[in-house]
Amino acid sequence: MDGNSPIGVGVLGYAGIARAHLQAILRLPTVVSVPRRPIVVAVAGRSEAAASATAQMFGAQAVYTEWRRLVDDPRVEILINTAPNDLHADPCVAAAARHIHILCEKPLARSAPEAAQMLAAVAGANIVHMTGYNYRFVPAVRLARRFIDEGRLGRIYHFRARFCDESMIDAGTPYAWRHNRHRAGSGSIGDLAAHAVDMARYLVGEIDAVSAATRIFIDRRPRPDGGEGTVDVEDAVEAVVEFTNGALGTLEGSTFCAGRKNLFTFEVNGAGGSLAFNLERLNELQVSLRGDGIEGFRSILVTDPQHPYGGLWWPPGHILGWEHAFVHQLHRFLTAIVEGGVVAPEGATFEDGYRCAVVCDALYQAGREGRRVKVVIE
Amino acid sequence: MDGNSPIGVGVLGYAGIARAHLQAILRLPTVVSVPRRPIVVAVAGRSEAAASATAQMFGAQAVYTEWRRLVDDPRVEILINTAPNDLHADPCVAAAARHIHILCEKPLARSAPEAAQMLAAVAGANIVHMTGYNYRFVPAVRLARRFIDEGRLGRIYHFRARFCDESMIDAGTPYAWRHNRHRAGSGSIGDLAAHAVDMARYLVGEIDAVSAATRIFIDRRPRPDGGEGTVDVEDAVEAVVEFTNGALGTLEGSTFCAGRKNLFTFEVNGAGGSLAFNLERLNELQVSLRGDGIEGFRSILVTDPQHPYGGLWWPPGHILGWEHAFVHQLHRFLTAIVEGGVVAPEGATFEDGYRCAVVCDALYQAGREGRRVKVVIE
Amino acid sequence: MDGNSPIGVGVLGYAGIARAHLQAILRLPTVVSVPRRPIVVAVAGRSEAAASATAQMFGAQAVYTEWRRLVDDPRVEILINTAPNDLHADPCVAAAARHIHILCEKPLARSAPEAAQMLAAVAGANIVHMTGYNYRFVPAVRLARRFIDEGRLGRIYHFRARFCDESMIDAGTPYAWRHNRHRAGSGSIGDLAAHAVDMARYLVGEIDAVSAATRIFIDRRPRPDGGEGTVDVEDAVEAVVEFTNGALGTLEGSTFCAGRKNLFTFEVNGAGGSLAFNLERLNELQVSLRGDGIEGFRSILVTDPQHPYGGLWWPPGHILGWEHAFVHQLHRFLTAIVEGGVVAPEGATFEDGYRCAVVCDALYQAGREGRRVKVVIE
Amino acid sequence: MDGNSPIGVGVLGYAGIARAHLQAILRLPTVVSVPRRPIVVAVAGRSEAAASATAQMFGAQAVYTEWRRLVDDPRVEILINTAPNDLHADPCVAAAARHIHILCEKPLARSAPEAAQMLAAVAGANIVHMTGYNYRFVPAVRLARRFIDEGRLGRIYHFRARFCDESMIDAGTPYAWRHNRHRAGSGSIGDLAAHAVDMARYLVGEIDAVSAATRIFIDRRPRPDGGEGTVDVEDAVEAVVEFTNGALGTLEGSTFCAGRKNLFTFEVNGAGGSLAFNLERLNELQVSLRGDGIEGFRSILVTDPQHPYGGLWWPPGHILGWEHAFVHQLHRFLTAIVEGGVVAPEGATFEDGYRCAVVCDALYQAGREGRRVKVVIE
Repeated sequence: MDGNSPIGVGVLGYAGIARAHLQAILRLPTVVSVPRRPIVVAVAGRSEAAASATAQMFGAQAVYTEWRRLVDDPRVEILINTAPNDLHADPCVAAAARHIHILCEKPLARSAPEAAQMLAAVAGANIVHMTGYNYRFVPAVRLARRFIDEGRLGRIYHFRARFCDESMIDAGTPYAWRHNRHRAGSGSIGDLAAHAVDMARYLVGEIDAVSAATRIFIDRRPRPDGGEGTVDVEDAVEAVVEFTNGALGTLEGSTFCAGRKNLFTFEVNGAGGSLAFNLERLNELQVSLRGDGIEGFRSILVTDPQHPYGGLWWPPGHILGWEHAFVHQLHRFLTAIVEGGVVAPEGATFEDGYRCAVVCDALYQAGREGRRVKVVIE
Repeated sequence: MDGNSPIGVGVLGYAGIARAHLQAILRLPTVVSVPRRPIVVAVAGRSEAAASATAQMFGAQAVYTEWRRLVDDPRVEILINTAPNDLHADPCVAAAARHIHILCEKPLARSAPEAAQMLAAVAGANIVHMTGYNYRFVPAVRLARRFIDEGRLGRIYHFRARFCDESMIDAGTPYAWRHNRHRAGSGSIGDLAAHAVDMARYLVGEIDAVSAATRIFIDRRPRPDGGEGTVDVEDAVEAVVEFTNGALGTLEGSTFCAGRKNLFTFEVNGAGGSLAFNLERLNELQVSLRGDGIEGFRSILVTDPQHPYGGLWWPPGHILGWEHAFVHQLHRFLTAIVEGGVVAPEGATFEDGYRCAVVCDALYQAGREGRRVKVVIE
Repeated sequence: MDGNSPIGVGVLGYAGIARAHLQAILRLPTVVSVPRRPIVVAVAGRSEAAASATAQMFGAQAVYTEWRRLVDDPRVEILINTAPNDLHADPCVAAAARHIHILCEKPLARSAPEAAQMLAAVAGANIVHMTGYNYRFVPAVRLARRFIDEGRLGRIYHFRARFCDESMIDAGTPYAWRHNRHRAGSGSIGDLAAHAVDMARYLVGEIDAVSAATRIFIDRRPRPDGGEGTVDVEDAVEAVVEFTNGALGTLEGSTFCAGRKNLFTFEVNGAGGSLAFNLERLNELQVSLRGDGIEGFRSILVTDPQHPYGGLWWPPGHILGWEHAFVHQLHRFLTAIVEGGVVAPEGATFEDGYRCAVVCDALYQAGREGRRVKVVIE
Repeated sequence: MDGNSPIGVGVLGYAGIARAHLQAILRLPTVVSVPRRPIVVAVAGRSEAAASATAQMFGAQAVYTEWRRLVDDPRVEILINTAPNDLHADPCVAAAARHIHILCEKPLARSAPEAAQMLAAVAGANIVHMTGYNYRFVPAVRLARRFIDEGRLGRIYHFRARFCDESMIDAGTPYAWRHNRHRAGSGSIGDLAAHAVDMARYLVGEIDAVSAATRIFIDRRPRPDGGEGTVDVEDAVEAVVEFTNGALGTLEGSTFCAGRKNLFTFEVNGAGGSLAFNLERLNELQVSLRGDGIEGFRSILVTDPQHPYGGLWWPPGHILGWEHAFVHQLHRFLTAIVEGGVVAPEGATFEDGYRCAVVCDALYQAGREGRRVKVVIE
């Protein structure tokens, strides 16, 4: 069922997001025929205990506390980089130099220039590169794209997206690397709004200009080891986005929305109809198409055989969870490796990661300068 | 049940919105004890036939085709102005000069300066003045305000509101006064977004600055009598709003949202919880309050006796329609007349109408100039 | 706009349900052209004060404390009977003898035999008769029927309906005529489930047999004037219904459903699709039609011009309230009077009221005897 | 992280439901610390090719086409029986005789007597036995039970459950073992309604009596290999259930509900509040509790750390899929094996499987005989 020879994966990081990737590696061959079966060969991370536990759990033999050793391990053909944002660029650049295929978590980098450097590194390396905008691989999102590709929405007038949770609403939530601009690059912009930016680009097209405002609502937080840290990344960003095709919309990212747990919603309006999505109900897509004389938004439970990824998992109506998109994403990545192509347009390449970073930088600049900022791809 | 002497109402206009006011006049005394029973004494409008039919339907004896005659009619103690936007200022100023109480539809005027002129006219006239921001009188909206007034939401972090329909999405929808800046003042800004602005001010407080973009998607439309008209008001506006209290949000108005019929939604996030509302389900308020250990947004069907306007109409669960708010609004207006006060804070005064107009002008300017515009109250 | 001569209406009762009828009389001519304008000429009820207040509120000149005087009033051409169930039969029979058109609230009678007697009385009287199954006149319900009439659902497999509230869940809710079998005939069966039975007949067809169980959860309640009353009508009924066309379903009525305010829901499944409705969101109809390749239940906001009663009230998306159905019902009733026909199939005749009573009696019997009971129309 | 010695699992069957169990075996150790790590040692099934493919996919060394060889394999310490219903009893009885722990899919047997025989077999075998009523392990269902156990609902008045899909609505859906009473035991009763029965028992308690009706809507279906098969199991069942504690409700199972994909819904009403659940949105629980002065059903997204299975998987708001319950179920099963207890009350034992079968038989009998049938546990 799986391919002839396995392919070695090195994983940098062991937090929740790493586990989503690792479980995808485990499950993928039980869901779909894979050209080469992925094997976790090494786990790297700062804490040896944590890395060891993860390695044991997923059958990896090697454990490293320095990322360079992971990249130097000759069995590693694939790098999955789930490290904090300040450890995206260097390991990826090093891996590219060694012709290791790379799946790097989003945001690709802390800034557009840093992302540009990473993009340059993979450009000539003859490798498959991917930025982990995993929500592209949610069946309902893929179905949304299918509706748009089929022309059912016609000319797009509006796109709006919100990514909101309440993860920072408690003043007692401790200071972490995420609150530090040097390490994280940004706050809600890179962490949450970046997903909205990628979705905007995936569904509607390139963004031409943005206007925005940001806020830091709580600017000092207790450090786990005592004392306080100063938050210098935004808790929230609100923006108006203008697309090159004339569409207009809003983007939002905030960690101060009480009661919202993981609310990534978007709505697209076109001349022919509208689409709406909510990550907290990720198996459903709301669709209203004009002209059939009935009207009304229908709620499609995207689990039927004719739907994207239909038939891969369970019978109709048996819903998927958040992490299933990682399995689909990994499958696309492996297929591109074996077939020699790129992960786009289904998946996000480093080019997509870079372009998204340019928009993120523009959001920050627009908020700081109080003016509409053009998105300039170099 | 009703008061000693009736009070004469003159209505300018006979379109749908006039009928909502007229039915409210008819029904109010059957719902609640009124200090003085309102009687429609005259209807004015350009078409004598339409004005006549409306007058007969609601028992008015006088019909005028010139608004000045309405204001000159000595039986008219109240003017309800539902005329197109370019006929708000003059009739209201004339009515104020005659000490006629005024309920003027929104937007109060075509621009902030025009609204300022109207505000000045009523300021010294010793009359009750009201701008028809009727959604303040929806029970669920009033309940939202109650939650906020009680401090349950604490410090407010976010407000966002959308007012979207599909009323202009067909290119064949004919050119009308609404598409003409001189007559209407603006498009989606004054027609739709103004409701969102008033709601923002009602629930969160004053707006300090806005960033925005607008679009005209279809700029020529067929005239009913042949030929084409040039649309010079915006079909859509998207904006970022910054409140004086530090809250941040987005506002939207668009008539190009396929499948959205009358979608006025808002969400408020505070340190203590969140609220959400949708006019298409206007009997419901979504509320999530932190700290009770259960979590989750609850959907309150705002029809219980302890709710705002509870017990006025039907038993719990028997929902109200869109027009019921006009009855509540009229009751507030009449009560202020008899008791000698103002309609605020429940209702919007001309001061509120003016302040809303300042924000609307700022939205337009921000879109045109591509920069954050401060809201300046003169 | 309204017809040449007015038509006199006598109203028996002044409680909430009477007010819904009275407001409908007031509003109908402002909504649609009526052949003859209804005028409330008399109000009758046990309390003279309450009847007087109602009469004054709605412009009626006569007030009676005995229903016979109402029926004897020669100005009364229409009787609207909103009295308790034990005052349905006698006034209606007397009115029929005087050739007064009758709109009687549901349930038509306390039992099938009593309903049969009423049906016999109107049969030869050459009058228009109607049972107040007002939910037939909700636009979404009418749209449901339209879908079925058009054959879009094909063969019907299932119908299920619940009518649930929490009106009796408090042990302190006082004893009233509704708790007394002699006066009310039944409890949740006649009060709630009867609506479900009528809806079943309206949408699917005749019921052939029922199986059921009933419960009295709280059998003693405090009397308002001291002491306790014994509840001898069922608090809840649950039933299986079998239709003559082979369809199968469930019916439920209960006043012990915490948190449910006025939850009347139904779902119909056919070979071609399904429909679902919820009275707490009465402007919406859920529809799933097979075979269009998209799937999903769509939520139709039944306020568009092409929908039933479309264009009568407000623009699309401006929702109606619970009482609007009374206006539609009254219009159907008046039209039948002027045009000389019957209110069916849109409205329920006394024949429908009788047939519904037969099913209600069968539900009671099935519960008591623990067996499937055939529905026998005499 | 996992225990000292692995524990060998033999799986009978390789269809979809088998894969859900197999993936659970694979993932469990990556989610939670397990006392003994489960290893798939053998797969058995009629088709050697299919069994082989499954074995290879999940790392099993042995493949059998006869279930006896699976039970005879000394490495098999656990039997997971996912075979068709007519292959539940014999393999389970044989396994019990060899002191193999058993997790058997539901319905436990084709009839109550057959289930009784299986219960007798495990009774003295000193093994852990479990019936695969996996929905007990959905976090929202567990939370429902927690609310009830805490007494928040007080005395229970009502329970109603529906399990509906459209899996048999097409006349062209081929004849299979599911349509044959000898092989399947029953149709929608055992396949769908049995889940509702188990849920009723899990949440409310024992069922005292049932009334029911069943239907075969399409009684002949094409055989895959030509010709037609006669369907002799019910397509649908509708029932009234009466609980020993006085609660009253309805149960439904149907494969003829167009547009319903996997709609397992239930609602519980008690003196203190109500709960509602929908498997198509399995991460959510609707809860309305009386007495907090706010009212309204809240929609709890059951993914927070304080919720059942909270913290096992992902951060709040990252939803789980249908198959996650199999992981929780397996964990309970393994824990009982290592700790020496039983899987109840969280999981369903063979005793639960037997009691459920008695109710299922009563449903069938009640439908056939047209009378209320008592549930008699021998």
